Amino acid sequence: MSIIAVGSVAYDSLKTPYGERERVLGGSATYFSIGASLFNHVNLVGVVGEDFDDADLNLLKSRNVSLEGLVHRPGKTFFWKGEYGKNLNEAITHDTQLNVFAEFDPEIPATYMDSDIVFLGNIHPTLQGKVIEQAGEGRFVACDTMNLWINETRDELLKVLRHTDILFVNEGEAKLLTGEPNTIRTGRSILKMGPKLVCIKRGEFGSILMDRDNIAMVPAFPVEKVVDPTGAGDTFAAGFLGHVARIGRFDFETFREAVKVGTVLSSIEIEDFSVERLKTITMEEIDKRLEEYRKIIS
Amino acid sequence: MSIIAVGSVAYDSLKTPYGERERVLGGSATYFSIGASLFNHVNLVGVVGEDFDDADLNLLKSRNVSLEGLVHRPGKTFFWKGEYGKNLNEAITHDTQLNVFAEFDPEIPATYMDSDIVFLGNIHPTLQGKVIEQAGEGRFVACDTMNLWINETRDELLKVLRHTDILFVNEGEAKLLTGEPNTIRTGRSILKMGPKLVCIKRGEFGSILMDRDNIAMVPAFPVEKVVDPTGAGDTFAAGFLGHVARIGRFDFETFREAVKVGTVLSSIEIEDFSVERLKTITMEEIDKRLEEYRKIIS
Repeated sequence: MSIIAVGSVAYDSLKTPYGERERVLGGSATYFSIGASLFNHVNLVGVVGEDFDDADLNLLKSRNVSLEGLVHRPGKTFFWKGEYGKNLNEAITHDTQLNVFAEFDPEIPATYMDSDIVFLGNIHPTLQGKVIEQAGEGRFVACDTMNLWINETRDELLKVLRHTDILFVNEGEAKLLTGEPNTIRTGRSILKMGPKLVCIKRGEFGSILMDRDNIAMVPAFPVEKVVDPTGAGDTFAAGFLGHVARIGRFDFETFREAVKVGTVLSSIEIEDFSVERLKTITMEEIDKRLEEYRKIIS
Repeated sequence: MSIIAVGSVAYDSLKTPYGERERVLGGSATYFSIGASLFNHVNLVGVVGEDFDDADLNLLKSRNVSLEGLVHRPGKTFFWKGEYGKNLNEAITHDTQLNVFAEFDPEIPATYMDSDIVFLGNIHPTLQGKVIEQAGEGRFVACDTMNLWINETRDELLKVLRHTDILFVNEGEAKLLTGEPNTIRTGRSILKMGPKLVCIKRGEFGSILMDRDNIAMVPAFPVEKVVDPTGAGDTFAAGFLGHVARIGRFDFETFREAVKVGTVLSSIEIEDFSVERLKTITMEEIDKRLEEYRKIIS
């Protein structure tokens, strides 16, 4: 099964307790595509500017990622400058330049239409809605979002959720979305909004996966050194959906295992800046860490 | 295997989002004894005043708890008045009256000396040290503590830790003790202080159990309604040590299972005020919730 991934492709300037990097590859669709392509073919939908580096294009091409849906526009690529303090859970944004992303109007190429899974990266819900419309019925739709959209474009987001199979959401954002302080009740509220599944992500405290009949509490992998948490959420989604695509089943046990694969993949990703670790990661390494992880959580 | 439990026996006045209770039974040794006695015999060491109710004495007696080490002194029983806001993780203390507890000088009766396990409830480390001295070598010593002792009596606490087999500690307190922001590295630091095992408790985020060679990440039970979190930590320890006493083995797999039993027992305890739920709880109910819990975390 292949996966359509829609989201930002960006350059990031980052500062973390472990160092600084200028204009390195970033963006939700980038992290997702490189991560998920370890498991299955990915069909990328995004936009880049004239400054987008051939080396970065070649990286994506080399990783089993189709780029027909990656539009090149006059102007500059989306740029984000951020910093993480000691509390690596939260980024401080110093600068956001939407650039060509401001006019992003996602279009799914006809050649992508055999994909069974759609990943809607964390972009404006109106754009997510357009993708859902183009994708039509019968695909498994996964959605990411953030506090900005929950606060500013709630109605559009609720419309998207009605057509979503799984929502990936941080615990704080889930509570913001539902106004419910208890996490489990938050999950139940979200399931009433449309998604068949919700995955509430709690960072270093693991995740909770819920559908109407089941709850799975999945611990985090015990990471001792987080070099750069950028992209952790997208990489988690990549491991999750990559695993689902690989297995080709849509039942709770597959999803539960998918949370573990997502957890492990993102635990590796954050060990270095940008997509550096994702570049060198192998399936053998993922399986080895999965085995270690299973011992820890068994 | 029986367990010596040393700690406070108290009356609490409580306010939580679910209501208020005046002068209800509380104290670390109380919660622990009632909880652990579901699994095995408990030998209680503590002190109460003249106001201690016969009904409460009878409750303990009826629960397979020896009271030879429960000293009766002129004066009043330890009293605590506290409140929990929406954030049920933290109590606001309105009043603490040590009363007879101020002169508490724990003495282990000779009849208790066949116990294999010692639980040191959250009391002054000097008192914990006295118990360790009386207990002598060869027993499995479990210790609880809190920020007060970490801040005010660090040296005494470090001395206790050198003779401790397992430390139960909240995540925030563990970080305070070690000065280490990363939780896993915090655990490793504590293991260097003496304990063979450390169980870092993260409230609604579960627990981490570590020894020098193993890590176990254990999720919380997904509780939707916390009526009164008082005693959750002591009840967790009760389930943990109760299970270890029942099994009679001191290996990592037994401890890992013990974390699950502690998690489940405390998840039931917090469903009502004071020890109300612990009074009615049955082993059948614990096993049923354990089964439900296993499905959630498997």
